[in-house]
Amino acid sequence: MIFEKILEEINDVVPIFKEEKEYLKSILKFKKLNKKDFLLHQKQVEDNYYYVLSGCLRSYINDKKGLEHVLQFTSKGWWIADNESILYNQPSKFNIVADLDTEILILSKKAKEESVKKFPKLELYYNESLIRSVIFLRNRLYEILSLSAEERYRNFCIMFPELKNSISQKHIASYIGITPEFFSAMKKKLKNRQICFEEC
Amino acid sequence: MIFEKILEEINDVVPIFKEEKEYLKSILKFKKLNKKDFLLHQKQVEDNYYYVLSGCLRSYINDKKGLEHVLQFTSKGWWIADNESILYNQPSKFNIVADLDTEILILSKKAKEESVKKFPKLELYYNESLIRSVIFLRNRLYEILSLSAEERYRNFCIMFPELKNSISQKHIASYIGITPEFFSAMKKKLKNRQICFEEC
Repeated sequence: MIFEKILEEINDVVPIFKEEKEYLKSILKFKKLNKKDFLLHQKQVEDNYYYVLSGCLRSYINDKKGLEHVLQFTSKGWWIADNESILYNQPSKFNIVADLDTEILILSKKAKEESVKKFPKLELYYNESLIRSVIFLRNRLYEILSLSAEERYRNFCIMFPELKNSISQKHIASYIGITPEFFSAMKKKLKNRQICFEEC
Repeated sequence: MIFEKILEEINDVVPIFKEEKEYLKSILKFKKLNKKDFLLHQKQVEDNYYYVLSGCLRSYINDKKGLEHVLQFTSKGWWIADNESILYNQPSKFNIVADLDTEILILSKKAKEESVKKFPKLELYYNESLIRSVIFLRNRLYEILSLSAEERYRNFCIMFPELKNSISQKHIASYIGITPEFFSAMKKKLKNRQICFEEC
């Protein structure tokens, strides 16, 4: 059951058979995290890729003033990794923490490299998940640069319908790029104006 | 000469030989752009990847109010593509325009797909360039969310030393996320405070 979703996902990109499935099961390590458990601390050198089975991971930055900025949420069916830290062996710029009780699969850098040596076609799947990351990040940038806070909130609700009532409102506000006070006032205003996003 | 840099770059990731080099030369199309020539218009469906040989491409969004927001610059040795439009056959969210006279190589979606069927190892190179994009975009997000305008300007100068005096100051201001007026005042202030970034 643990591996079902990811094996299906890989199989959708590139057909995999019994041998490859067994191999993948042997290199993907399962881990349960409690809410607030950390996977990665800023300045730590990283060498793992994380795939979310359930729950939610939050990646965030502490700036020089100690303020937190949410970079992204990673929910079921998505990968998260600090590729820069993994690739260049340099300290990570962000933290990854569980925002809910969360189940993940861990793929180490070494295991990933060996997997493509053994089964080169897996590169197609890794490539596909990178394309999804590029699309997600460019859309996040697009939203921050050109959409209003209301529009960003709406997109958050579309992207993460299961998170909007289960994670801290303070973190949603930070993801949207506004203060918790402004977020609270914005939601009140939307309610008063009887604007209710179908998704929210 | 046109293909020298990209073939070297590919060869650094995965060794390629005469047959593969000749094949790559046959599928990469060379194009010269004049400053202000467009490669992609917002809402157009895209099916090409672009590699910059010289000059600079600017990707930007027009928001609902008609304001422009620079997403990214693409200079020598970098790829740019709207992966979302290419993958899902949907209208692009941004424009790509030449900010200087620019030389590029064009790889069509079809040619890319065929190239990995013919030489699966090329997937490793495409993968590498996607990782670079993920790193770039996450750093861009990190900067916008947590650095000051001065720090973002400094990073721009480090990232694009060849662009800071050759492209429009208005576009640099937009990339940094401030108005041209604020950008001009900020540079003046830096000068008055005798702060001069070594890179700028």
